[in-house]
Amino acid sequence: MPDTSRLNFASDNAAPVLPEIMEALARANSGPARAYGNDPLTMKVEAKLKEIFECDLKAFPVATGTSANVLGLSVLTPPFGVVYCHRLAHIEEDECGAPEFYTGGAKLALMEGEMGKLSAGALRTKIRHAGQGVPHHAQPAAISITQASECGTLYRADEISAIGEVAKEFGLSLHMDGARFANAVASLNAAPAEITWKAGVDVLSFGATKNGAMAVEAVVFFDLEKAREFEFRRKRGAHLFSKMRYLSAQLDAYLANDLWLTTARKANAAAARLAEGINKIEGASLLYRPEANILFARLSQEVIARLAKTDIVYYPPSEAQPDVMRLVTSWDTREADVDLMLDVMTGKV
Amino acid sequence: MPDTSRLNFASDNAAPVLPEIMEALARANSGPARAYGNDPLTMKVEAKLKEIFECDLKAFPVATGTSANVLGLSVLTPPFGVVYCHRLAHIEEDECGAPEFYTGGAKLALMEGEMGKLSAGALRTKIRHAGQGVPHHAQPAAISITQASECGTLYRADEISAIGEVAKEFGLSLHMDGARFANAVASLNAAPAEITWKAGVDVLSFGATKNGAMAVEAVVFFDLEKAREFEFRRKRGAHLFSKMRYLSAQLDAYLANDLWLTTARKANAAAARLAEGINKIEGASLLYRPEANILFARLSQEVIARLAKTDIVYYPPSEAQPDVMRLVTSWDTREADVDLMLDVMTGKV
Amino acid sequence: MPDTSRLNFASDNAAPVLPEIMEALARANSGPARAYGNDPLTMKVEAKLKEIFECDLKAFPVATGTSANVLGLSVLTPPFGVVYCHRLAHIEEDECGAPEFYTGGAKLALMEGEMGKLSAGALRTKIRHAGQGVPHHAQPAAISITQASECGTLYRADEISAIGEVAKEFGLSLHMDGARFANAVASLNAAPAEITWKAGVDVLSFGATKNGAMAVEAVVFFDLEKAREFEFRRKRGAHLFSKMRYLSAQLDAYLANDLWLTTARKANAAAARLAEGINKIEGASLLYRPEANILFARLSQEVIARLAKTDIVYYPPSEAQPDVMRLVTSWDTREADVDLMLDVMTGKV
Amino acid sequence: MPDTSRLNFASDNAAPVLPEIMEALARANSGPARAYGNDPLTMKVEAKLKEIFECDLKAFPVATGTSANVLGLSVLTPPFGVVYCHRLAHIEEDECGAPEFYTGGAKLALMEGEMGKLSAGALRTKIRHAGQGVPHHAQPAAISITQASECGTLYRADEISAIGEVAKEFGLSLHMDGARFANAVASLNAAPAEITWKAGVDVLSFGATKNGAMAVEAVVFFDLEKAREFEFRRKRGAHLFSKMRYLSAQLDAYLANDLWLTTARKANAAAARLAEGINKIEGASLLYRPEANILFARLSQEVIARLAKTDIVYYPPSEAQPDVMRLVTSWDTREADVDLMLDVMTGKV
Repeated sequence: MPDTSRLNFASDNAAPVLPEIMEALARANSGPARAYGNDPLTMKVEAKLKEIFECDLKAFPVATGTSANVLGLSVLTPPFGVVYCHRLAHIEEDECGAPEFYTGGAKLALMEGEMGKLSAGALRTKIRHAGQGVPHHAQPAAISITQASECGTLYRADEISAIGEVAKEFGLSLHMDGARFANAVASLNAAPAEITWKAGVDVLSFGATKNGAMAVEAVVFFDLEKAREFEFRRKRGAHLFSKMRYLSAQLDAYLANDLWLTTARKANAAAARLAEGINKIEGASLLYRPEANILFARLSQEVIARLAKTDIVYYPPSEAQPDVMRLVTSWDTREADVDLMLDVMTGKV
Repeated sequence: MPDTSRLNFASDNAAPVLPEIMEALARANSGPARAYGNDPLTMKVEAKLKEIFECDLKAFPVATGTSANVLGLSVLTPPFGVVYCHRLAHIEEDECGAPEFYTGGAKLALMEGEMGKLSAGALRTKIRHAGQGVPHHAQPAAISITQASECGTLYRADEISAIGEVAKEFGLSLHMDGARFANAVASLNAAPAEITWKAGVDVLSFGATKNGAMAVEAVVFFDLEKAREFEFRRKRGAHLFSKMRYLSAQLDAYLANDLWLTTARKANAAAARLAEGINKIEGASLLYRPEANILFARLSQEVIARLAKTDIVYYPPSEAQPDVMRLVTSWDTREADVDLMLDVMTGKV
Repeated sequence: MPDTSRLNFASDNAAPVLPEIMEALARANSGPARAYGNDPLTMKVEAKLKEIFECDLKAFPVATGTSANVLGLSVLTPPFGVVYCHRLAHIEEDECGAPEFYTGGAKLALMEGEMGKLSAGALRTKIRHAGQGVPHHAQPAAISITQASECGTLYRADEISAIGEVAKEFGLSLHMDGARFANAVASLNAAPAEITWKAGVDVLSFGATKNGAMAVEAVVFFDLEKAREFEFRRKRGAHLFSKMRYLSAQLDAYLANDLWLTTARKANAAAARLAEGINKIEGASLLYRPEANILFARLSQEVIARLAKTDIVYYPPSEAQPDVMRLVTSWDTREADVDLMLDVMTGKV
Repeated sequence: MPDTSRLNFASDNAAPVLPEIMEALARANSGPARAYGNDPLTMKVEAKLKEIFECDLKAFPVATGTSANVLGLSVLTPPFGVVYCHRLAHIEEDECGAPEFYTGGAKLALMEGEMGKLSAGALRTKIRHAGQGVPHHAQPAAISITQASECGTLYRADEISAIGEVAKEFGLSLHMDGARFANAVASLNAAPAEITWKAGVDVLSFGATKNGAMAVEAVVFFDLEKAREFEFRRKRGAHLFSKMRYLSAQLDAYLANDLWLTTARKANAAAARLAEGINKIEGASLLYRPEANILFARLSQEVIARLAKTDIVYYPPSEAQPDVMRLVTSWDTREADVDLMLDVMTGKV
């Protein structure tokens, strides 16, 4: 049996840091620099993001995806507000109540939605019946969508625009959790502007960590007015880094020469290759067409048992869905890794 | 005039990262690793801290000093609690309300105290009159002391023990903000255990960032029972890092071969050299004997004007105290830097 | 057409105060009394509740049903906790985020359940998959059930015991929203102890306002240890009344001579009479068998149109369910009121 | 020795309810009424307050003084805000952290100030050095003054205007805790408008409970824009009363025929009579000239011992100030009560 020790399909978080980013950190490590973001690198990153998004904006580096999401939401919703999101959204499932904490007690209203995505129609119906203006009810404040979604699927520009219209109609803000925004842009081949501010997005969590950074995301405000409170909320959340240059250096390298897109394309391609292989396995199938770097496969117990015998890292199926496995690829997943995984699944090795 | 561009006495935050730590990050950057702290490095760091503190403990890496403080305090005080601290404490002055946020609204009760330190006697008097058990009053819950203090002074083991006694007497917890704990240990030449758990400290913010790390502190619980909630509060605060290995790698290198102490000694020595020089300047004086890497100097307007003409980085005196300057050294402050600074101050260059 | 001006089926909140309670307020209004609950009436009420519930307990008067619920929940769940409740629960639907506010950001996990009730089986499944101990997930902390439910149905003692077992199994607390507890006791003809602490309930919101008081509920702790924090949380929530005697006087009269049960029986009987009449209307039907003082009727558009022409007060059907009407009776609903309502519905008058 | 059982100088909270208010409650208790403030009495009260304050305003009844204060403050300050108040303010001393809770963690910045009052000058200095715009520091948001103050002293219109100017200068809101506003108006003989909105006050807690109501205060917004959020915050704080008519009935009677002023004058006169008598006692003196219904007297141990032998209710001197006693009168303090109190103090009876 070949060595499977570097196979990890549990999370793109398991991947190491891109060499270009390690080099940028080393370059940044010279002499003193002004603390707390008053350094030249931090300003350079904001300028680069303006170029990428073709608009004026405010960008704030933070170190975790959860902090990007919940700090963003905290300026969009009052403590008596409601944030509409998919039942499977990271902010609901995987943040241990951080959105409630940062908003001072706002509610997440959970919605169903095919392929892990919200629909404008369902949102409109739900918000219309939410009792806007009635003090007995928490008040509709924001919609949060995830791009790429938790199911590995993508929102098209027109789908986002339709949701943006609903937000506008009821006076809500639109938030995008873009922990895997790079994978979405790479896959859709869309201009970043088209699937964000032009479609009504007010605040974007622009992820980098899952796509090869060490620990950095940018909270991007297209609505500059809403950015005013952000610095205070970031500090009060204990997310203002003293040695900010080391966050900004990561982003700087990430954005240079389209590294973020090149890298995302590699992860997406690995997922596509894996999907193709799984589709060929007798009795296996995919729950959704994988559009980014996540896939959900329905597998036979035989296949699951084969994987269980190895040291390959992945999340085993849940008790609730014992034949469904989530598999995630990263910039560091090589073609050979995918092929070896498939060989294990099919019993070839 | 010689080149003063690398002179920075504003903050130890301005210093770059220790080469040993950069190397450790590079070493850690190989292949996949389990996310969220389930990696070998994170476990190794906790074991090393047990050795250093000569006791069982729980240690949690976080990335900012503020998060270390406020996450620690959040498990020590209920939302209707009071934390006693010095008027100048970082948790009061420089955290934009983060302690109030993380505790859910606890109060900081501000106290005077000579040389930036709390005294056991003043604490006892204050807490005795605080109305324990009376529902009209927020309830005494914790005492927070800073070692080294904001004034650059140090608590001796017996001073801490006396405060620990007060905490015990009234059923409060004792928290130590150790953003500059290394500077304190290096200067006091004390065993870490003597000035922490043996003196009654329940939770320590064990700093590393200001002393040469990129962005890491450890929240150290000597009271293991109080650590139970911590993991949930860290995640909910958005301070659980997915790629935790890069926090732990920093701590690992920092603790190895007494690097943390060697480095702190350098910063302390630079401050002592600077203090000695200032003491010799006509009309200049120190507000406190510097025991760590911070000093406060009373300077003539002539000296202040000389500095203002350079590109040396420091915080100018405040409007309230126009002749007092705070100067901070770091592991990266060289003897030549200090001497050049003194030459500028005295008008020699 | 006869005078329908006193017909109100919108809410038991619309009813006036029982004459016995008005008299008790007048009796209490003599000379000075110690403030904040240190008066004899407040102690007497707690003693009476011990007698009624046949156990030791702690009881705290507050003035609103929402405050009773959320103050109770605030001591049962940490800020990173989850409270399991029915999708229709008052704490979810009608409290504008008060539970999230008072718990410091805990989540309500909404569940379906027939006839407005939770089932032990569904709770067990849901909690088992909730990720207890995993820091990414908010932590199961409490179950909240409503007796009588929002649908006007009741939990039997064995149903509550089964839910109490689930709570115990996973280490959760059990909270009961008893805004209409009197209606439940009167209808079930059960001993209060049987459907509360003997069945595993830790904290009960013992309602009085909807059943004829002016503004008072008692938060009853059967788990005395959990009551310790309550007084601080009540004051901090601004719900400690200075002139407490006027809250306690209401409860004193309410509990004397079984007034609370007599009164609830009247409201229940009015609902039963109304239900019986509706069942006889061509094309009308009840969604649930009414067990307390609330009923949901499916009505023809003809009947709905007849009501719309009058000044009778009720909540019109929602846009989502245009043929369903909620009707609520109170201690002040007379037989003649019910008969007149039915005459209007059937077009007799 | 005569009967001293009705003597209570501990608090105006100890007094019973005015007969006019009891009668108004009885009158309101007839037939059904729309819940939650949609009743005619609640609207009438707002109209009456517009007349009294000679301006447009929004008024919201709540039941406790603490809720009036903290709900008002919660719309004036963000969670990262600072509220400037006197060290002795009720919001700091007697609300168990309710302001911090309702604001989501804002800080109270405590200030000294003669006779329990803030001065415009000290506020200007303090706010100027508070670091507006700097993310490390909690941000100045509001000033809160107490009229009548905790020391029983009063702000003149020009003193309030000067503070209002400071608020405007730095962009802060001005809040007035008027738990004893009636006593202030009665004593100053000022138009309510002159000492509130014309002097820059944005929100007033208009107290009634301490001056003869059962449990009601009005939160009065002169800045209508700031009132928009209030209804949601009141409900979420669990302070929206279902049977609101019984709060409004109290206010209605309180405001009719200047009852509020007549009553306050009686309490003030009783305090003045008591002050006059104390001034004549050998060795006794007053700390401040009493301007409302509170006085602080320095008394000999002999006098204190005489009181201790009786059943008269008062707060004994604190350990910290063993010769100072706070004495409070109410609408129910009769001349004979005062004279008997003085006779006891002087040893005449």
